[in-house]
Amino acid sequence: MEERVGYVRADPMARINEHYAKLPASYLFPEIGRRVRAYQADHEDAKVIRLGIGDVTEPLAPAIVEAMHAAVDEMAHRETFRGYGPEQGYDFLVEAIRSHDYAARGVELAADEIFVSDGSKCDSGNVQEIFAANARVAVTDPVYPVYVDSNVMAGRTSAAGGDGRYPGLVYLVGNEANGFQPDPPAQPVDVVYLCSPNNPTGTVATRAQLERWVAWARGNDAVILFDAAYEGYISDPALPHSIYEIAGAKECAVELRSFSKRAGFTGVRCAFMVVPKGVTGVDASGKRVSLNSLWARRHTTKFNGASYVVQRGAAAAYSPAGHEQTSAQIAFYMENARLLREGLTAAGFTIFGGVHAPYLWIRTPAGATSWQFFDQLLERAQIVGTPGAGFGPAGEGFFRLSAFNSRANIEEAIGRIRGAF
Amino acid sequence: MEERVGYVRADPMARINEHYAKLPASYLFPEIGRRVRAYQADHEDAKVIRLGIGDVTEPLAPAIVEAMHAAVDEMAHRETFRGYGPEQGYDFLVEAIRSHDYAARGVELAADEIFVSDGSKCDSGNVQEIFAANARVAVTDPVYPVYVDSNVMAGRTSAAGGDGRYPGLVYLVGNEANGFQPDPPAQPVDVVYLCSPNNPTGTVATRAQLERWVAWARGNDAVILFDAAYEGYISDPALPHSIYEIAGAKECAVELRSFSKRAGFTGVRCAFMVVPKGVTGVDASGKRVSLNSLWARRHTTKFNGASYVVQRGAAAAYSPAGHEQTSAQIAFYMENARLLREGLTAAGFTIFGGVHAPYLWIRTPAGATSWQFFDQLLERAQIVGTPGAGFGPAGEGFFRLSAFNSRANIEEAIGRIRGAF
Repeated sequence: MEERVGYVRADPMARINEHYAKLPASYLFPEIGRRVRAYQADHEDAKVIRLGIGDVTEPLAPAIVEAMHAAVDEMAHRETFRGYGPEQGYDFLVEAIRSHDYAARGVELAADEIFVSDGSKCDSGNVQEIFAANARVAVTDPVYPVYVDSNVMAGRTSAAGGDGRYPGLVYLVGNEANGFQPDPPAQPVDVVYLCSPNNPTGTVATRAQLERWVAWARGNDAVILFDAAYEGYISDPALPHSIYEIAGAKECAVELRSFSKRAGFTGVRCAFMVVPKGVTGVDASGKRVSLNSLWARRHTTKFNGASYVVQRGAAAAYSPAGHEQTSAQIAFYMENARLLREGLTAAGFTIFGGVHAPYLWIRTPAGATSWQFFDQLLERAQIVGTPGAGFGPAGEGFFRLSAFNSRANIEEAIGRIRGAF
Repeated sequence: MEERVGYVRADPMARINEHYAKLPASYLFPEIGRRVRAYQADHEDAKVIRLGIGDVTEPLAPAIVEAMHAAVDEMAHRETFRGYGPEQGYDFLVEAIRSHDYAARGVELAADEIFVSDGSKCDSGNVQEIFAANARVAVTDPVYPVYVDSNVMAGRTSAAGGDGRYPGLVYLVGNEANGFQPDPPAQPVDVVYLCSPNNPTGTVATRAQLERWVAWARGNDAVILFDAAYEGYISDPALPHSIYEIAGAKECAVELRSFSKRAGFTGVRCAFMVVPKGVTGVDASGKRVSLNSLWARRHTTKFNGASYVVQRGAAAAYSPAGHEQTSAQIAFYMENARLLREGLTAAGFTIFGGVHAPYLWIRTPAGATSWQFFDQLLERAQIVGTPGAGFGPAGEGFFRLSAFNSRANIEEAIGRIRGAF
């Protein structure tokens, strides 16, 4: 990367980060919120069912509630009060993660390879900072927008072209032909974001597909950023939950996990990132540098640990009671997904995903664009979903529905959609 | 800024952010932790008193505890469960901030000028992202290290020189001659970080000094990043708590606030940043862009809101009971500060700060370097402080002690120091 020091500016004004201007005016979910508010302003009595943002609806599990109350009580007494904690997370939580999420699946991690945070949105937005400004980044299309937007904001692209794509990024198209699981890129790429079970398509990578990715990354000295926020929704025991179940992945992959969907923490905020010490990048001289040391630096410099009360709640999700209770919630949501899949299939829709993820990826009917279908679904059935185009150009012609809702609302939604289309 | 698109790399390896290598191997507080652990390993019976990291020690106020319990209970029931909240913070907290921190002092802010976060370390580390890579940044010396390190990591400097300073940053020296309140810079600067009451020196800017900064910023089209994390410790009613109490500051200043020291939230995690819509920067074409819109983009793209339970706790700090209880905690810490100041002054030390901030800034005795004095204090008195050199070259020859501890430990510390020096 060029040195900027000594670059003398003539203008006497504070210069902004101009890369932000490359982003469209409105982020996907704010735009959805705007359209829903506008609809509701005109239809005050409409009972809108929200299957748009992937937000959980079941209350926190009793074991988690109990642990959070106990932690609040600890904070209420001088003897047990906790101030600043370790930025990487308390041992009680890191050990629970190591043991239950990894050792139990045959993956050995060191405690300092796990970094507890306040959410996967932060982690997935921040992780690009440890790579060079000219790192070659690949994303799937459709894709969780944060991967793209955070790289645009960091200056790794020019402005979006007419097709909505940012020159500078490599796009890997997921479509019906490849089951929304694109192949590794043919051109040189340094970093690739993968998400499985996938948001938004609800599809999941098989062991063979992950093996292919790991082989590609090792062969090309690339890094995989593997977002497994939805691993808790995998129901087939043959499917890997962690990319580290693939031999060699500890030399090429970073893994992101979240309590948001596993334990209903979207409003509680806790996640973690695994950065094995064997994963390396190179500096300009070709020297190998551990990504673990870079991320440790980033994490300890710009973050001050997740809330103690929250970390106690997260740890309780691993207790026998907490695991059973949160697993029952996931089973409830996945029964919603099954009902949605079967109901919409019977109504003539073509549906993908929804078997190992709480998302259904629906082909829009009659050639409607995804925003047209958004408006149709809102107007005809008072249902909010997420337009596929919001996840990238290859999402056009598709639509995401989430299974996070009450059973009554899911059944009501199925009935409304069958009546309206 | 140059366009990087089209920059073709020949090497087939993931390139890292090399700017991280410009930072010294160890961040200040981890290095302190390392030395203390080494000392304790050799002196198992030593009762070490920690006046190093500025971490609160009093338990959470009862009103805050009550509010957090109530919020956990809300999360336990479907009807009151909260998932994703607004990224900028819940209205109940934003309105409490507007009303109590600002309107009560004659400062009118719009709700969308306030951004609730999970901590000021994050805010102060992240805010530089909205400025250009070649923005000219000034910091005071001594300084809270995050301001410097986050700009080094973003590539705004070259490697540190032999004096520990990073070419590319403008340093404004605080010393005994200027009462640790340096003047605005003479050379062109786009962005300046100010902290008052100051960490580490414990000194506070007067109204006249802040007026001078605001006049300078407006005259030079610069932006002030004003860190007021310790405003709750100001005891003189003539001193401003917010930079917005200075006319014109809403056109040139961003303000950072935290619940960490105001309400004992170092382990709970909540803060906020105020970005008035009148504060602008310019793009390459000279067009003015509101920093509020840039920060809103950053905040909504890379952050998903502070924990609901935490926000309820923060709001309770503004209730009549919460305000009274947290104010009593601050009074307790400031009585500690008074005892430390008087005790160490009587022991022959020269002390600055500690009147409107929980930090004392001590001139090291007998020409000791600040790390030498750190080791002396640890070995002779089993007391941990923070070496001034950890806050920048101009901190050399000084030492920071914090007033956050029990009364018994403060009195014990004073006795030990008087006996040892």
